[in-house]
Order: sequence, then structure tokens, then C-alpha cells
Amino acid sequence: MAPRGPRVVVPVDVKKRPWEQELPLHNRWHPEIPPVADVRTGELFRVEMVDWTGGQIGDNDSAVDVKSVDLSVPHCLSGPLRVVDSDGTPAKPGDLLAVEICNLGPLLGDEWGFTATFDRENGGGFLTDHFPGATKAIWYFEGIYAYSPQIPGVRFPGLAHPGIVGTAPSAELLNIWNARERELEENGVASLKLCDVLHTRPLANLPTAKGCLLGKIKEGTEEWERIANEAARTIPGRENGGNCDIKNLSRGSKVYLPVFVEGANLSAGDMHFSQGDGEVSFCGAIEMSGFLELKCEIIRGGMKEYLTPMGPTALHVNPIFEIGPMEPRFSEWLVFEGISVDESGRQHFLDASIAYKRAVLNAIDYLSKFGYSKEQVYLLLSCCPCEGRISGIVDTPNAVATLAIPIAIFDQDIRPKKGKVPTGPRVVKRVPDVLRCSYDGNLPVTQNPGGKESEMWKGARSA
Amino acid sequence: MAPRGPRVVVPVDVKKRPWEQELPLHNRWHPEIPPVADVRTGELFRVEMVDWTGGQIGDNDSAVDVKSVDLSVPHCLSGPLRVVDSDGTPAKPGDLLAVEICNLGPLLGDEWGFTATFDRENGGGFLTDHFPGATKAIWYFEGIYAYSPQIPGVRFPGLAHPGIVGTAPSAELLNIWNARERELEENGVASLKLCDVLHTRPLANLPTAKGCLLGKIKEGTEEWERIANEAARTIPGRENGGNCDIKNLSRGSKVYLPVFVEGANLSAGDMHFSQGDGEVSFCGAIEMSGFLELKCEIIRGGMKEYLTPMGPTALHVNPIFEIGPMEPRFSEWLVFEGISVDESGRQHFLDASIAYKRAVLNAIDYLSKFGYSKEQVYLLLSCCPCEGRISGIVDTPNAVATLAIPIAIFDQDIRPKKGKVPTGPRVVKRVPDVLRCSYDGNLPVTQNPGGKESEMWKGARSA
Amino acid sequence: MAPRGPRVVVPVDVKKRPWEQELPLHNRWHPEIPPVADVRTGELFRVEMVDWTGGQIGDNDSAVDVKSVDLSVPHCLSGPLRVVDSDGTPAKPGDLLAVEICNLGPLLGDEWGFTATFDRENGGGFLTDHFPGATKAIWYFEGIYAYSPQIPGVRFPGLAHPGIVGTAPSAELLNIWNARERELEENGVASLKLCDVLHTRPLANLPTAKGCLLGKIKEGTEEWERIANEAARTIPGRENGGNCDIKNLSRGSKVYLPVFVEGANLSAGDMHFSQGDGEVSFCGAIEMSGFLELKCEIIRGGMKEYLTPMGPTALHVNPIFEIGPMEPRFSEWLVFEGISVDESGRQHFLDASIAYKRAVLNAIDYLSKFGYSKEQVYLLLSCCPCEGRISGIVDTPNAVATLAIPIAIFDQDIRPKKGKVPTGPRVVKRVPDVLRCSYDGNLPVTQNPGGKESEMWKGARSA
Amino acid sequence: MAPRGPRVVVPVDVKKRPWEQELPLHNRWHPEIPPVADVRTGELFRVEMVDWTGGQIGDNDSAVDVKSVDLSVPHCLSGPLRVVDSDGTPAKPGDLLAVEICNLGPLLGDEWGFTATFDRENGGGFLTDHFPGATKAIWYFEGIYAYSPQIPGVRFPGLAHPGIVGTAPSAELLNIWNARERELEENGVASLKLCDVLHTRPLANLPTAKGCLLGKIKEGTEEWERIANEAARTIPGRENGGNCDIKNLSRGSKVYLPVFVEGANLSAGDMHFSQGDGEVSFCGAIEMSGFLELKCEIIRGGMKEYLTPMGPTALHVNPIFEIGPMEPRFSEWLVFEGISVDESGRQHFLDASIAYKRAVLNAIDYLSKFGYSKEQVYLLLSCCPCEGRISGIVDTPNAVATLAIPIAIFDQDIRPKKGKVPTGPRVVKRVPDVLRCSYDGNLPVTQNPGGKESEMWKGARSA
Repeated sequence: MAPRGPRVVVPVDVKKRPWEQELPLHNRWHPEIPPVADVRTGELFRVEMVDWTGGQIGDNDSAVDVKSVDLSVPHCLSGPLRVVDSDGTPAKPGDLLAVEICNLGPLLGDEWGFTATFDRENGGGFLTDHFPGATKAIWYFEGIYAYSPQIPGVRFPGLAHPGIVGTAPSAELLNIWNARERELEENGVASLKLCDVLHTRPLANLPTAKGCLLGKIKEGTEEWERIANEAARTIPGRENGGNCDIKNLSRGSKVYLPVFVEGANLSAGDMHFSQGDGEVSFCGAIEMSGFLELKCEIIRGGMKEYLTPMGPTALHVNPIFEIGPMEPRFSEWLVFEGISVDESGRQHFLDASIAYKRAVLNAIDYLSKFGYSKEQVYLLLSCCPCEGRISGIVDTPNAVATLAIPIAIFDQDIRPKKGKVPTGPRVVKRVPDVLRCSYDGNLPVTQNPGGKESEMWKGARSA
Repeated sequence: MAPRGPRVVVPVDVKKRPWEQELPLHNRWHPEIPPVADVRTGELFRVEMVDWTGGQIGDNDSAVDVKSVDLSVPHCLSGPLRVVDSDGTPAKPGDLLAVEICNLGPLLGDEWGFTATFDRENGGGFLTDHFPGATKAIWYFEGIYAYSPQIPGVRFPGLAHPGIVGTAPSAELLNIWNARERELEENGVASLKLCDVLHTRPLANLPTAKGCLLGKIKEGTEEWERIANEAARTIPGRENGGNCDIKNLSRGSKVYLPVFVEGANLSAGDMHFSQGDGEVSFCGAIEMSGFLELKCEIIRGGMKEYLTPMGPTALHVNPIFEIGPMEPRFSEWLVFEGISVDESGRQHFLDASIAYKRAVLNAIDYLSKFGYSKEQVYLLLSCCPCEGRISGIVDTPNAVATLAIPIAIFDQDIRPKKGKVPTGPRVVKRVPDVLRCSYDGNLPVTQNPGGKESEMWKGARSA
Repeated sequence: MAPRGPRVVVPVDVKKRPWEQELPLHNRWHPEIPPVADVRTGELFRVEMVDWTGGQIGDNDSAVDVKSVDLSVPHCLSGPLRVVDSDGTPAKPGDLLAVEICNLGPLLGDEWGFTATFDRENGGGFLTDHFPGATKAIWYFEGIYAYSPQIPGVRFPGLAHPGIVGTAPSAELLNIWNARERELEENGVASLKLCDVLHTRPLANLPTAKGCLLGKIKEGTEEWERIANEAARTIPGRENGGNCDIKNLSRGSKVYLPVFVEGANLSAGDMHFSQGDGEVSFCGAIEMSGFLELKCEIIRGGMKEYLTPMGPTALHVNPIFEIGPMEPRFSEWLVFEGISVDESGRQHFLDASIAYKRAVLNAIDYLSKFGYSKEQVYLLLSCCPCEGRISGIVDTPNAVATLAIPIAIFDQDIRPKKGKVPTGPRVVKRVPDVLRCSYDGNLPVTQNPGGKESEMWKGARSA
Repeated sequence: MAPRGPRVVVPVDVKKRPWEQELPLHNRWHPEIPPVADVRTGELFRVEMVDWTGGQIGDNDSAVDVKSVDLSVPHCLSGPLRVVDSDGTPAKPGDLLAVEICNLGPLLGDEWGFTATFDRENGGGFLTDHFPGATKAIWYFEGIYAYSPQIPGVRFPGLAHPGIVGTAPSAELLNIWNARERELEENGVASLKLCDVLHTRPLANLPTAKGCLLGKIKEGTEEWERIANEAARTIPGRENGGNCDIKNLSRGSKVYLPVFVEGANLSAGDMHFSQGDGEVSFCGAIEMSGFLELKCEIIRGGMKEYLTPMGPTALHVNPIFEIGPMEPRFSEWLVFEGISVDESGRQHFLDASIAYKRAVLNAIDYLSKFGYSKEQVYLLLSCCPCEGRISGIVDTPNAVATLAIPIAIFDQDIRPKKGKVPTGPRVVKRVPDVLRCSYDGNLPVTQNPGGKESEMWKGARSA
């Protein structure tokens, strides 16, 4: 008789705040954050997680909590876990840690999530220059499906996944991170052209003691102060995995993570019920609390064996992922394209970020013809199982990016057809709309200048 | 009794040069290139096409033809076709042209293709700073499968598609293209940061009479000279579709193209037996001659109805695509990740192009451990059915891009495993290698600095 | 704020016997078994279920519990549930009840299951003439995956589903069932030819008070006695749905059930972690306890609108099913074929049951070459996600049936290859074997006579 | 430089009759029919085939050709091909012949097909007791798609495949076939119960010189007479493969065939553009002419190594199939169920043929509610990519069979919905109907007795 079910190594109580949990959470990457538990290779264990904001966003009728969110707090991670093999020997730097995601999902009794856009002054997002105000949609789960009162007319099966799975960095790697991100923050605006087009700020999120959670390290101590001012924020994905937001990393997937510190110090969090490639609205998946059922193996010496550093040091590596066999099956997709010409008509050089921005803008405008507000579509494309592809990256000067949307998630046929977009009862304004706050800042809003009259239209009309 | 099979509206003879074909080919976009045939809405018709280089690359044992390719010639397109409805009324500017790809494939008796990297001085490619020399691999087709004597150990089903489907631009749109690309070519190096990282040159390919094919326009005339100096090159994808390189645009797909000139003037070419997302080596799909069986519908006024301009004029639109139901079914994928930190360790801001470059480099190094040369893998990833995704585009400062490779295309298991990469008979050096030419230029080659000793390795070794 | 998660309408405690549950279970179909709870259309509710045998089979090292199982007890069903619409009006005879399976799975802390063959004297199975003894394999679940200590070398994702979903029959329908099955039981052996080939007995399971559970009806009362002697056994699928064993009826599926009594009286049970088409070993899926999360709609008058009776009365209908989008994705299948010629070489006429029997026998023999015992394969093919198809049913005299097995569930390549079946460490005898009991009956065991020397072999050897 | 494309080893001219072809066709199985060509292992070769009737059915407006078809002629097969290895050594009895289907499709210029039901007096079909008259529908191909003027409102991608791939039987095997089928033909009606329910006659098709084509054997010779009276008909699938009608045997599939005679003598024919599992109408796929591109390997001694005889001799084996990766991707299916209770209400014992008959009848009645005639649906279910499954074969007394239909092939939503079946313009009678002939025989037609008034309906109406 085998043990039944997974061993719960990190429980959470969603009614408690992150710092009140039985096993304290952490929201920074640092080699000295102590493990909260040990796990053995081959055993099935369960890790529970609060949502990435640590409960700041509520299931209510207002987006004020989104507008005023404290972004020094995310992501509230569960762990670190010290991984040992059957002999009790811990994972060692240079090993590869294979983490299999055997199961995952929302927590019983907490089957809901949210998708939001942050205010341009407080977080922003991929299209924040177009949509500067905070918005929010609540999603409820019916088993594998999610639906939102704020975005009627869509319902889709989730491809749930953890936004974050990562190992602790070594001190050496942490220093590399902090140095390169500080350099960007200090010199970036002048030197980097994308800042004209991708308006999210700040450029980087440097270490800060504000909002810092360091697990078992006691706040107020000298050690806490030192670590809090060194520890890396969890916002970007980096060499240790971290916030990769790979939407297909669901049941049956495997992550092969480099090990930088003894025991690996595995952490996870930022559970998503569903996400679109790119997670464009930034608070952008269907964000939820949840659980992971995991199984680890240690591939001794696997970093050297399987990962090639691609940068100045042996630490400049990236994890590898293996996608599992359980995904929703969609047979038909509508695909929107963008090229690296920005909204002002300016030509960029093979810039996939700009091409993808334009593909998303094209999709938003298109779908808004079917009775949705643009904000509804923006949130939807951030969290539904849509695919963002780099289709062409060599045909100078245009990168071509595409956004593919499964047609089956809509309750109407969204394909172009002869005649006008269908009107009548099936395309009423999709009300109620997303929850919104005003944008009170004074940064400019990008207006789509596309209304300018073209010679062609004149000809077409007179014809 | 219905008519049997498709009507052949553009035949080609692969033994003839592009300018010798019965219906002359063209390799530029211009509103005044005259249609070579009419097609009616609803009828099934067949268009045959030479390969994109017009036969410059041979099925032989040398890459010299690649190194010395004349890039003023591609892409040799078939058409334009004037599309009329059942009443004989042509498509009008402002309409949307729905083109269904009912079938496609290689030409009988010409079942082969090639994948190549250009020399850095003559075309380059996504990783030309790493791989500056010309290389070539030949692929032979066995029905749905392709295999290459130069890249042994892989065989995969093709997802054949046209790299280029497009309509003719209006004069107004052509002017917009030429203006914005000239601006880039003239000022780009100074103003655009990506040029440090993506080394393909020139920045843009401006109109040139050299190598120009204008279909039925007689060479040597004044008209020819004028048009040749105005007509846009076919390299980049643009508002008219063109070189989109969407690898899933295969049997059963639909393209919804904007119509800018009367009759739409539909052209197609650049047939691919298979391509990976991004087509990273530039000459990068399995390039072949081939045929398309198409069916057109005209959605009257559809541009205004379905496409929203995303730029200064009503012409700044992009086509929409609908992906068909026939694709090879792969169940397992190995996924490589890249973040927007370049090979020198420098941090970039949400740059998906750099992130994708690093994901591809990671994949090349990984797969080369299994007995391949890096050039073999570079060509393979350019043409096999791998998927390039924008996974995260909001988590400042790192964009996260991923490259997913179907495991089943290899004759060995390429997953990380306990112990070392398998050696012995299954992982012999995969010989013969790709065909190569030396790189004789004096531009620097990017060296992966990853060999630098890390503190960690020292610790791991002594442990 | 919406209600969180599903309402639990039927809880079970797997540590208790079926008759000790808080809401009593039932194991017969009868219109007078009273509902245990009401559910409203549109609400998400949860039904928990014990395994089909009511806990008779244990997670232990012996098959004795299988050999001596009391088959008068299965299937222990949860319900009936009375379905009412938002106005409180119950479903009415003639309505169609649409039941959506939003989620399902094993019960927390009870993540295991079993597959077994019954003794030929007590239950039998599809191949009981070949395999007359009781056998058992235990499966443990790791999230979506199942593995068995008794069948090493295979691991597969489950496509969990309820073996039984059904509505209560009316008295009229119950009478029809009892009459036709009694007729078979009484006259079948003489009149039905299949009995020579499909050796499971008895021919039908007629009503019996032995082992009977009637929910809220008090045992010992006159009412109990009457109903117990009228109520239909749950073994076969019938007009009310019931034991359909449709292996793809998983997350996201819908069942459209005819309503025969007021309130519909919906019952469910017989949860399967995974099953192969046909469930050939009879105790044949990975049998488990589990939960369903369901949502109901009532289609008023839907029986007349959508179902056509195919028999003497308006009650001779069958339910309709809609398969959901979440299934494991397998890309490669090995397919075994059978024709309607039995093991003695006798020709049958378009008999799909015999053809399928032979396809399964062929598969068992084939796979046993790879180191398995035949009993291991028999159990495996009963519970893994294999597909049983009727490929040809018109080509007299042979029906052609096929059994398709996903290749990826094995840890070795099971395809035919040049040379001999691989030997060496990868094909050791797969030990330990299934748990077994001796067969002590005196019914004959079908021996495969295939060893008889053929002229051909003699020729081949001498050549 | 490799050879381009496949070598054409059997060309056909569809304007010629079967006996006028350059390489003569054959329509019987016999060891002495001489090979028409040699093929080498590893080479890609092309075999062209006429349709199974040898051109008897025309693309015209009448079903008379179906009613009067000469069924002594089918199937007109191409081959036999003698398979030799690279040394010129032929395949030997006891080997396994692996035939890979690299490509296949209709012949250029002959892109059409037909589906038909035969008259009950001349061929019949699975439901011939319900539908005794000859009917016909013509299908035209648009690349991967087929549509029929006689069955408007459906269009689907084909999963083309050969109905027949087989090797020649040895004399010993041929004798076995003839003996067992003669036994059935002579004694079957008395002994086999299925004949009450599956009304296709004759029970078996015994050897006959009428209509016989023996390839290179000269008609009128003594040899011809002898062989014609011994040679087996091609209607049923048997140990040599033959008419398996496995609808998924498409591009990328492999067939592992037993070799019974030197050279294997491989034949193929009966090309289908698409077929539903069971091919229920008998002339039942979209029947067409076509081509196969094949590649063979010989697995020496593979019969003994991989196939276990399941019958009295070493020849009682069945081929194995491997399904390829290219299939149309359907995400939603509507599933109809049948149990082994026949239309008269009589209970049968685990009879999958009867269960499948009832599932098909249920589907026909259901779909006919959406504006189709029952004959239209019968033909449609015979040729569209629907799946026929044996879901339950152990739950005495009912076998459960299911028929799953991809929803996307219809131009309307065919799911049950609240309210009535939609009426109005989307559900006009689908005209024109199939082409029909009267049934002039005097066998009884099975009438669905389902109209009989039920107690339930009475109650429902009065409520």
C-alpha cells in the first residue's frame, strides 16, 4: 500500500495575509532566505500559494484596489523548498533540478480570479499608453471553465499554470542581476529606443526594503535589512526561471531548473487559471490562489551537461521546459498580425515587441466591433488561451508577430463575413463593462490616428 | 457534372528562368504591374510558383550559389491576378479579399528544397553575427516528410505554406512604405538600438532597378524604368500581407487581405515545405517551388467593416488569417527560453527580439550536444515545425520568449536525463555536415563568452 | 461576489460502507427510490461517490477480494437528485436533461484505484474463456498520471469519467427492461450464437433483493421488498443512460438524458480514473472513488424534440453525449485489427463483438513479447486510453474491428522493427506481475491453437 | 542529387476500363496472379488506382448505375508488386512487410467521388432493411475539402486512405478462406442469429469466374479458368489485410503486412477521399480513383517475431497498423449511443454490431430533424470523418456502441438546445436530395415502430 495523495509541504490560508501564514511567504530572490521545508526526490508533494498580490485585490465591484495596489509586495511566493535525494544529499550548485507538475488548480472554496490593468502611474502594462486607467474583471470558475460577469459572451477552459517556478540565485548571480538592472534603470531612457513605444515604467524594479517579505528571516534584524536591500524583485523572469509566464506549463509539464545554491531552494507562486501569451495587461492572467502537486528529480551535474551559458559567466543560463499532454483542444483560430511599424507610422528595425504590440492592438479593435468595449478585449486577450508568435524576424526591416485566438471561446462567430458585422440581439453592447477607475495622471494617451481620410476611401466612396 | 479539379491560371516550368516563364513573374510590389489573369470568386484555381530565388540555388554539393546569391531578384512571385465576382465586377479598394488555401504542395517532379544561411556580407540572418558564413542543406520529400542528407537523424512532416500572399499596394500606400523605409535606412543606425544586436544589413531594402522583374511591363521602356525605381521590394511583410511567413498558413487556411487597387491584384510565392516560427536563418524555410489551389471571395467594403487602421492613414491596416484544421499532431515539446539580456550580459528593456535570439541560441547549443554541429541545428530550427512564442512582454525589464521544438522529429530522445548526454552509436557526430563556404569579410563574429569560470563551478568541482 | 465553488450535495466518506453514508446510496434503478437532494438548473454542484463495488476491493497484496467479490452490490450510486428549474418546477417526463461535467477527479486522500478480472464463475469478462482466474492490479495517482506496481513500465495520463450517469426509469420502462432481459436469460443460450464466443455469464442480471440498496427506502419494509424485486440491476447501459462507460466523457462534456419521472432523479457513480474502449476485463477501468462537479439544464419537451424512439415504444430512446475539449494529446498509435473469424477458425457474419475480441487478443499477444505477462496486458488494455473502433461492418462476411494503443504510454518503443524484439535490460520480464488467484472451476479454457505447424513455416525454414 | 519524386510503378488512365489499363488490374486474391512490377525497399514509388467499381459509377444525375452495378467486378486493384530488398532478394513467407504511406490523394483531373447505397437485392448495406433502394451522392473536391450538391450544408476535410492494402495469400491460406466462407454460406442462415438483424446478403461472396480480372493471366486459358474459380473475392478484410477500411490510414501511416508468398505480392486499391468508421452504406466512403506514394521495408522473419497466430494455423494472423500524425483536428463531437436491443425491442447479448446499428439509426433520426432526408444522413455518416466506438462490451447483456460526429462539418449548430430545433431559413429542407432509384424487390422494410403511444407521453401531455 503506497502513501495516498501528495504530502502537503506548504499550506496556505487565503483568509490570512502573506505574513500571517503558517509557513511564512517571501517575495524576493536571495540565497539566504532559509528553506521552509525539505522535499525528497521522487515524492509527490503539494505546495499551496496565495495569489501574486497577496490578497490585495478583492472579489468586489470596484477597481480602486487595483489602482492603489502596492506593487512592492508581489509576488508572494511559497517556499523555498530544500530538495534532497533519497540519501538525504541536497541538490548542489551545478545540478539540474527536474520539477514535474503532476497536478495543479485553484484552492477548494476559493474558485475565482481576477484580471486587471494597472494605472499608468502605478505599474502600467503593455498597452498602458493606450489604456492608462486601472480596470478589473472578476472570473468565476466552473470546473475547467472560467466566465466573467464583466466580460459576458466568453467562456473558456483554463490551461492553469504557475507564473513563477524558480530556484534561489547564488550571491554571484544576484550581483549580476542587480548590476545590469541598475545600469538599465540609470541609463536606459537615453539609450534604449523601445522606451518610446513600450511605456511601462519603471524600466526596472531595483531592490527595496519596502514591502519586503523574507520568509523566516526576522524583520527588524540587521540581517533582514541587509538582505532586503540586496534581494532581487520577482517581477522579471531571469536565469533562475522565476516569472516566466509560460502559459502551457500545465499538468504533466516539467521544468529543468539550474541549481545555484545547496538544496536548490525551490519557490513557486503567481498561479494562473489561464493566460494569453505575453500576459499583455500585466496583471494579466486570471490571477488566483492555488496549489501545485510536484515531483522532483536531481540531475547531478546537469547544468554543465545540458545548459550552455550564453553570456559572460557560467551562470548566464536559462531553464528548459517540457510541455505536457493535457491541453484544451481548439480546432479553429483567428490570427491577427502586426509589423514593426508603430502607431505613428514610424518604421522600426526587426522589433518583435512593436510588432506584437500592433498585433494586439489590431485584435482589440477587431473584436470591439462585436459588441465589446476595448477594455474588455484588452483584458480578455491578456488571460484567454491565445497564442503570441514571432512569425518573421529576418525580413528587414519588419518583424512580423501574430496573435492567434481560438474562435470557440466566443458565443458568436467572430470571423469576417460577407456584409456587415452581424447586428441585432447577438451583438448587443456587452454590458456590464469592466470595472474602471479614472486615470488622473498627465501622461499623454496614445490616440490611434487611423481616422485620417485616405485617398483610397474617397475613391471607393465615389465609385 | 461539375468541372474537375482546379483551373490552372499560372503555370510555371522550373527548368526555365523567371523571365522566361509563359506568364512572366514579378518581384516587386507596385500598383501598375498588370494582372496576368482573371479569377472569379468561388472558382477553384491553381497557381504555380518557382522558388523564391528564381532557381539560383541548386541541388548540388556546394554552398557557393548561396554565398553569391543575387538578392535583388527575390521573391519571384506569380500573378498578379485580377479578382472579379460572378458578375464580372472586380474587387474594389476598400473591399476585403478572402483567399482560401484549399490545397498546396511541391510541384510534381521537383520534390526537393533547400535551407541556407547567407553570408554576413550578402543577406545575413537572425544570428549572422554568430554564423557569418554561407551554409546550405538540401531536403528531399517523401510525401509529407522531408529529410536532409546534410542533417541526418531528423525527419518531419511538413506544414507547407506560401511565405507570401499579398495584394498590390495603391500608389499612396507605396509612397508611405518608401518614405518610412528610406527614413530608417538613412537614420537608423544612429537611432535604433537593436542594430547592436541584430546584425542583418542593410536595414531596409529600398527600391532598385537591379534585378527587377515587372511581369508584363516591357523592360527597357520608360515605364519600366519609372516603376522599377518606385516599386517596393518584397522582403518585408507589410500592410498588403506579403512576406508574412506564417508557418501555419497551410491547407484549409484563409487569408483576409485588404484591397488597395481595382481587381485586388493578388500575388503569391515563396513556397515553403516547412518553416519554424521566425524563419531564423533568413533563407530559412525549406524553400521550394510549388503550387497553390485557391478560392476567393470578395467581402464588399470589408476593409472599413473589419479592419481598423492602426497608424496615420486608413491604409495602415494588417490582414487577418484563419488557420485550418490540418496540421501535424505533435504531443511532446521541449521548450527553450530566452530573456532580454544579450550575449554580453547587457540588460535590454522588454525586447522580444533579443529574448528570442537568446532562446534560439540556447536551443542551438543544447541540441549540438547530441551530435550535431551548431550550423546543422541553426538550419534545422529555421525550417522544422518549431514554435516561437512571446511568453512575457510586461515583466520589466525582461521580455521572455520561448522556442518549442517537437521531440518526435529526432531519432533519439533529446530530453535531459540523469547522467550524461547519451554517447555511443546513437550520438555519433552527425556527418556529413551542412555545406559551407568560408566567411571572408572582416566583421567581428560574436563569441559566446560563457566559458568564463564561475565561482560556482569551482565550488562544485571541489565538492 | 458569486458563490465560491460548487455546493456539495452528496458527500461520501470512503471509510464508511455504502449503507453507512450520510446520504444513503442505491444500487438499483427504480422510479420509487426517493431523491436525496434537490439541485437547481444553472447551479454548480458536487456529487461524491464511492467506487463501484462499495469498497469491497482493497489496496493490498492479494486478489482474493476480487475472486470473492459480491456482485449483487455494484454499482453503488450517489443520488437520486431531483432537478428543478429556477422557478422550482421539476423536470418532467418528456424533457431532456443536459448535464455538464465541469470537473471531476479522485477524492482527496483516496488517490488510488484498481483494475481486475473476475473469476469465470463470478462475473467473468470479455476474455474470460482465455483468462478464467481472478487478477488485480493497483494503480496510484500522481496528479494526472497513474502507475501500477503490478504493471511496471507504463504510466499514462487519465481521462477520468463517470462510468454511470443516468436518470430513473418510469415504471413502464422498467417493465420493458425486466421483460426483455428475462426473455434473454430464459431462452438466450439456445437462441443466441454469441454465447459460444463471449463466455461471460449470466446472460443477464435479473432483479434480486440480495445485496440491494434502495437509498432512503427502509429495508425490511414491504415497500422495500417489492421494489427490491422489481428494480433493475445497474450492470448494463440502457435507455436511461446508466452504465455507458464512454471513456471520453470527461471534463467539459455534456450528457443529454431523457427524463422519465418527475424531477429526473439523476444518479451517478462508477468513477474511472481511466478506461480503454470496451473496458474489456469488466472490472476494467481504473476503478476509484471520486467526485463530479455538475451543472444541469432542462430542455423542456426535449425528448420529443430531439430523440427518436428506435423500438416499439416512445421510451426506446438513447441519450446523446457531447465530448469536451480536454483530453490527453497522443500523436502516435499502434493499431491491432480483428476480423469476425473466431479462435477456432470459424467464420462469423459481420460480428463486431468477435472481431473486437480478436483484435484485443492480437494486441495482448503482441505486447506480451515486450516482457509483459498476458494478464498484465489484458488489464492494461482494459484501463489505458486505448480506442476500440468498428472499422468495417459491411464487407461480408467479416466485420473489422480495431484497437488503437497510444505508443507514448510505454517506457520502450513497442513498434515492430528490423530484427528481433529488443532484448536486454529494457525488456526484462516485467515483475512483479499482477496479483492472481487460481481458477478452481471446471469450465474449459480457450487455448490458442495457433502453434500448429504451417506448410509455410516449413518452407520458410528450409529456404 | 537524389532522384526527384516517386517512381511511378503502376499508372492508370481513368478513361480506360480496368482491363484496358497499361498494367492490367486484378480483382481477386490468389498466389498465382503474377506481379506487374518490382519495387525495392527504401525507394519511394507511386501506385495509381481506379475507383473500386472500375468506373461503373458516373458523375451524373441518376442512381441507375448504382442499382445495376455489377458487383462481381470490385475491387479493381493495382499490383501485385514484388518487393525485393537492396540486394534483390525478395520478401519471403514469414517476413513482415512494412509499407509506409508517404502521400496519397485523388488523381489530377479526376477530383470527384461518390457515395451510394446499393439496392437490397444487389449488395445491400448495414441498414439495407431500413433503406432498401439504391441512392447516390456525388462529391467534388476543393483541395482538402469535399462537398456534395446532393447533401448541401456540409463540407469537410478528407482523411484520404486506401480501403485495401494487402499481400497475396498462399495456397494454404486461400484454402482456409474458401472453406470457412463456404461453410458460412451453406449453413449460416440457420446457425447465425445476426442474420435476423444485419440483412446484407449474400452471407459470403464465394469465388466466381464472373467478372474476374486476373492481371497478366490470359483470359480463356485453362490456367485462368482454374484460378478464377479458386481466387478469393476482395470484399472482406482477412489475414492478408485487404479490405480493412481503416479510415485513419492516411498520410504518414504504416501497415505491417504478413508475407505469405515470395515477393509479398502487394496490391492496393479502393481509394477513399473520406470514410466514417464502419463505412455503413457499404458503397460507403467517398469512393474515388487516386494514387499512393509508398515506401517498403522488409522485416525478415517478422511474422514469427511480431504476429501471434490466433486460430488453428500459423497463418491465422492479422496485420498491424501505425497511424500517422496528419489528421484533421476537430475539437467538438456529438456522440450517439446504441445498445444491443434491436428495433423490435428484443434483447441481444453483448452484440456490438446491433449496438452500432442502433447508434447509427439514432444519429440518422436526430440529424434528419435539421432539414435533411434520412437518406442524406445515411450517406453522410458513411463517408464523413465520424468515429464508431465499442464503448462497453462486458456489461451483460448490453453492448454499448457509440458514433461520434464532428460538429464543425455542418453549417448549423446541431447540438440540442432549449426550445425547438431551429426553424427558418437555416433549416430549410436540404434540397436537392440524394439521387434515388425505387426498390422493386419484395423483402420487407424495417419500420421504426417508435411511434407507438407511450403512457409517459399521455401523462406528459395531460400535465
